[in-house]
Amino acid sequence: PKPSMLDFVNKAKWDAWNSLGKIPKMYEEIMKALEQAAKDDSTLTVMTGSGDYYCSGNDLSNFTDIGPEGVEQKSKNSGELLKRYVSHYIDFPKPLIGVINGPAVGVAVTILGLFDAVYATDKATFHAPFSQLGQSPEGCSSYTFPKIMGTSKANEILLFNKKLTAAQACELGLVTEVFPDSTFQKEVWKKLHAYAKLPKNSLAFSKQLIRGVEKEKLHAVNAQECERLVERWLSEECMNAIMGFFEKKSKL
Amino acid sequence: PKPSMLDFVNKAKWDAWNSLGKIPKMYEEIMKALEQAAKDDSTLTVMTGSGDYYCSGNDLSNFTDIGPEGVEQKSKNSGELLKRYVSHYIDFPKPLIGVINGPAVGVAVTILGLFDAVYATDKATFHAPFSQLGQSPEGCSSYTFPKIMGTSKANEILLFNKKLTAAQACELGLVTEVFPDSTFQKEVWKKLHAYAKLPKNSLAFSKQLIRGVEKEKLHAVNAQECERLVERWLSEECMNAIMGFFEKKSKL
Amino acid sequence: PKPSMLDFVNKAKWDAWNSLGKIPKMYEEIMKALEQAAKDDSTLTVMTGSGDYYCSGNDLSNFTDIGPEGVEQKSKNSGELLKRYVSHYIDFPKPLIGVINGPAVGVAVTILGLFDAVYATDKATFHAPFSQLGQSPEGCSSYTFPKIMGTSKANEILLFNKKLTAAQACELGLVTEVFPDSTFQKEVWKKLHAYAKLPKNSLAFSKQLIRGVEKEKLHAVNAQECERLVERWLSEECMNAIMGFFEKKSKL
Repeated sequence: PKPSMLDFVNKAKWDAWNSLGKIPKMYEEIMKALEQAAKDDSTLTVMTGSGDYYCSGNDLSNFTDIGPEGVEQKSKNSGELLKRYVSHYIDFPKPLIGVINGPAVGVAVTILGLFDAVYATDKATFHAPFSQLGQSPEGCSSYTFPKIMGTSKANEILLFNKKLTAAQACELGLVTEVFPDSTFQKEVWKKLHAYAKLPKNSLAFSKQLIRGVEKEKLHAVNAQECERLVERWLSEECMNAIMGFFEKKSKL
Repeated sequence: PKPSMLDFVNKAKWDAWNSLGKIPKMYEEIMKALEQAAKDDSTLTVMTGSGDYYCSGNDLSNFTDIGPEGVEQKSKNSGELLKRYVSHYIDFPKPLIGVINGPAVGVAVTILGLFDAVYATDKATFHAPFSQLGQSPEGCSSYTFPKIMGTSKANEILLFNKKLTAAQACELGLVTEVFPDSTFQKEVWKKLHAYAKLPKNSLAFSKQLIRGVEKEKLHAVNAQECERLVERWLSEECMNAIMGFFEKKSKL
Repeated sequence: PKPSMLDFVNKAKWDAWNSLGKIPKMYEEIMKALEQAAKDDSTLTVMTGSGDYYCSGNDLSNFTDIGPEGVEQKSKNSGELLKRYVSHYIDFPKPLIGVINGPAVGVAVTILGLFDAVYATDKATFHAPFSQLGQSPEGCSSYTFPKIMGTSKANEILLFNKKLTAAQACELGLVTEVFPDSTFQKEVWKKLHAYAKLPKNSLAFSKQLIRGVEKEKLHAVNAQECERLVERWLSEECMNAIMGFFEKKSKL
């Protein structure tokens, strides 16, 4: 079945740890899962994928599948949805940890700047080809990436479509630590189970202290990024870039 | 004699260079020394320890030694004191340089984000085990550490109690340069004596320009961190964590 | 002929690519070139030097060559000019890329924090000896450098006159990527020609999104830096430092 606009985890089955249960496939369901994880009595929350991919990003066929609401309204709705989605990460009240088990694409990469720690297998890659598709950065990456690694490095990813290896992402500070794929799962879960035994409120309050200082700015950045994307999705540049993508694909 | 709450340099004898004279053992006396150093005609100010440690952090027996003021008032007073202490670093008007001659723990680590340069022996380590003790970050580290190294790296230290080697601290940008222990003192003081000959006002005004842009934010962060710590010090989590520390110690 | 105050590219012939044509030697002419490049239909703008140097910085003989307006007015005028000059970089609306073909000095280094990507030959060096000359940071470097690399690293450059190799500047995040000098021109222009084919509006809007969040702050920093420099240029410290420079030079 064709994945819907929300189906940005189409190739990755998101698992959860401790409190999350199965993170389902849709933005709305991920938001619901995050809301639940925020309230339950777990110490921290982990997002990971199962299988070969961490997350393969939005399915581009969404762009060609316009419903009766028309293209402008669909674009506006998608912007609103993305803004709410990213807000859930900005406001998440306990440590949020990414366990990146394979290639990550698009919003699954950019949102990592809002995670509190990111562990990756050496088989992971990180790719957010915005300009190639006529689009622009989301997930607060226009703010978090330059903050983490400086503008000169961030722009290779945000403007010029560079795909990072796990080692490169770690050196740039997007990833906390990289493990060999053969021992990745064992080592990272051992670490996370130890973290989960730490004083729970101390971790939550410390995380809120660290993010609190920039929370207002993050919401403003998120709003601006989504506004820009709504404009981008309606632009000829974006349409042409996505048509080009499918044409190339159909020739394979 | 039991070290007091202020005695956070209990294992390290703080020396000084150029203007500071002997930095004494207490927060109040360090503040006085910083006030004096700010006004005298020295070009820059250096903080270092003598002996094996740079600074071993607060003595935890302070937490069990409650005076007649009661635990709530003591916690509030300690918060006020810490806020004033950190403010002295935020407002320090000339280059402040850390010469880290050995292991550094707790607030002696977090405050380094407010120093202008940090030189370390390769025998130095950097450890701020907040959550392990049910506490939360201070010294503006909830702001400076993510700014210096990105959130993914900073949280290993601020949330998950990672102890850094000197080489790791240097790679992450907390430390300016690391020297082999055998030549550390010679090389670093040669460098500092050369720096001290540079135009004095140029250095002071440049430092103030660099810090000025974030001074208001630093004071706000400091206030929030101290408010959070006052709450933490009174929490069951913190009490339990510190009791656990002493129980473990008594079994050795 | 003696280079004028504006002639900060005295040893480097600035070339241009795509839209810029020949970037001329003067601040005013560079501003005019940037204004033109901002409006034309090019996708991105490149600044580079031809010959051995990228840019050797301001000619210090400007400081001894005071016209009929007097030293105070000249200093004030120079501050106004510098502020306008740096503003042109802050407001530049499309990706601005530095191709650093050799040593860079002074404002040509500090302004790189406002570039969107910086590629360097391994023969390039980066040097901004402010305090050595009794001066203080410009080009928004008092803000951008600590943001990119952390205060401990930034201050070696901004306060203590450290000259960086290309490899060091790349590790610190000031430079995006370094190439061996023998293949530098070939590799970098191949890369840039590929970038220039990306969707133009997507790149411009993405860049504006990334810089927009800090644009107001950058203008404030620029104003403060220039104000401080006007004071510095009139200071005895600065006069003495520059006289010392010429005395040393005349003895060679």
